[in-house]
Amino acid sequence: MSIRIGIMGYGNLGKGVECAIRQSNDMELVAVFTRRPPESVHILTEGTKILHVSDATTMIDAIDVMILCGGSATDLPEQTPEYAKLFTVVDSFDTHAKIPEHFANVDAAARETNNLALISCGWDPGMFSVNRLYAEAILPTGKTYTFWGKGVSQGHSDAIRRIEGVLDAKQYTIPMDEALAAVRSGKNPDLTTRQKHLRECFVVADENADRARIASEIRSMPNYFADYDTVVHFITAEEMKRDHSGIPHGGFVIRSGKTGWNEDDTNIVEYNLKLDSNPEFTASVIVACARAAYRMRMEGAVGCKTILDVPPSYLSPLSDEELRASLL
Amino acid sequence: MSIRIGIMGYGNLGKGVECAIRQSNDMELVAVFTRRPPESVHILTEGTKILHVSDATTMIDAIDVMILCGGSATDLPEQTPEYAKLFTVVDSFDTHAKIPEHFANVDAAARETNNLALISCGWDPGMFSVNRLYAEAILPTGKTYTFWGKGVSQGHSDAIRRIEGVLDAKQYTIPMDEALAAVRSGKNPDLTTRQKHLRECFVVADENADRARIASEIRSMPNYFADYDTVVHFITAEEMKRDHSGIPHGGFVIRSGKTGWNEDDTNIVEYNLKLDSNPEFTASVIVACARAAYRMRMEGAVGCKTILDVPPSYLSPLSDEELRASLL
Repeated sequence: MSIRIGIMGYGNLGKGVECAIRQSNDMELVAVFTRRPPESVHILTEGTKILHVSDATTMIDAIDVMILCGGSATDLPEQTPEYAKLFTVVDSFDTHAKIPEHFANVDAAARETNNLALISCGWDPGMFSVNRLYAEAILPTGKTYTFWGKGVSQGHSDAIRRIEGVLDAKQYTIPMDEALAAVRSGKNPDLTTRQKHLRECFVVADENADRARIASEIRSMPNYFADYDTVVHFITAEEMKRDHSGIPHGGFVIRSGKTGWNEDDTNIVEYNLKLDSNPEFTASVIVACARAAYRMRMEGAVGCKTILDVPPSYLSPLSDEELRASLL
Repeated sequence: MSIRIGIMGYGNLGKGVECAIRQSNDMELVAVFTRRPPESVHILTEGTKILHVSDATTMIDAIDVMILCGGSATDLPEQTPEYAKLFTVVDSFDTHAKIPEHFANVDAAARETNNLALISCGWDPGMFSVNRLYAEAILPTGKTYTFWGKGVSQGHSDAIRRIEGVLDAKQYTIPMDEALAAVRSGKNPDLTTRQKHLRECFVVADENADRARIASEIRSMPNYFADYDTVVHFITAEEMKRDHSGIPHGGFVIRSGKTGWNEDDTNIVEYNLKLDSNPEFTASVIVACARAAYRMRMEGAVGCKTILDVPPSYLSPLSDEELRASLL
């Protein structure tokens, strides 16, 4: 029998979840929920219901796991606790600093009605977190580095778009080759923000706008750009569409740790991702997590969990015997 | 209170476990067991008992986890079932093809007396297995590649040493740069054995031996070398000691997987290790696994498990709250 999935919110992430479910033979997409008029939303899967969010309560018995595809800024802090009272839920809440607070809220809500919630599923937080944990548990004496990119930062692109005279913008975060090489060499360098990442911006400006002023406003923006070397390119709307319509991303988690009685030996553990599509990969992690959430709930687990609590085998559709024979 | 550890077998791996325990504040090395006369064995930790293997039964109440550091060929198939009847045990059984059989034997033995056994802990099997599993669960449509090296293969080095006229030998397995590049590009190439790895051999020959014959015997050795490009260097005993006394290793697990409705997007997941000391890193994985085994046993788990069954958080000495706040 298939695991019956609901998708709450049909943007890039929701669409990615839909695609990942198509690749999962043990899952079935039962319904997509939207805040828009359902008749205005068109999805890719045939035979799946499109319902208004207000109809979610009618589907409690028809859905095993509800995947919440809203944003971390305003949607998920409200949605995840709300729906954790009704369903086994999975989200990709990614505001690192607020994870403990989100966890506490979701845990309390899920326990009210004996549901399970698996939060912060994706790649960072998510697979990068798991890899930081493994590497630090194995090599307690060492240093962990996380680099992001090359990829599109949505938040930074949005920040540029808010500048007067900017019609469109895309910002790429690029890890510095020198910094990566120093980390991989086992030198455990102390790296400044500027030494770790470069920020490259592609901007479509209004034809009457002062480009020098725009570039200066970008480079001096606190938190977003001021601490980085920032390159600004002005391009046309056509170039933006032609060359920058993808949403690639990726990154590196590297731990360099010492072993041996006198800690003379250096060991480097690296995990890296190179993604054509950030939302599709994030969605693929979420769908594997939905499988795990379903199994953990079937075994009686309740409350809030994260991928750090999930036995890896629960993410796979293969049996434990198959995993031991083929992957171990 | 510390987790009380016993080490069964004090070779390179046992010594690596001893070093890793020193880096773990929540663990204490209680005893080292040896088949040799205990008075002939000298360890690094002060105050730890050195006992003959026949005394293991006297330490059942003093040890929380017994770490079995024997070899996979003959030691562990006997030892792990035997000691799983007495202790919570961890081993690093690494004969991939025999894991299902070993698992079944250990599982039956451990269940007889309600003990827990965590087998095949290390990096392959071990961390490479976990990474194959994560990547395949997340990207079901794709292809996984494992490369080993650059590093010393003990089995291949031993095989060369058995050739007449060879006094000493060290064999390095080296992944081919072209193959790695092709895999990382997302092309999903079909690679032959020869295209994936090069074998480089350093040989100390008897001065009267026929070097051409030795090189030819190495290159034509079935299973070990015949399917590879094999480079043979003859060196002196002094050069062997000076340049080849380390036991480095490493490798790569790379999965290239497609996402999107029409599977147009390529995503590359890579995990790689670069290890100065293969036995010390393996031992570090084992010690983290011993922590997990202890916790799982405290929660009531019995029988045989592998790292695929272990929630990542169980490997870390940090609390779940600390992990969520600092690593997620």
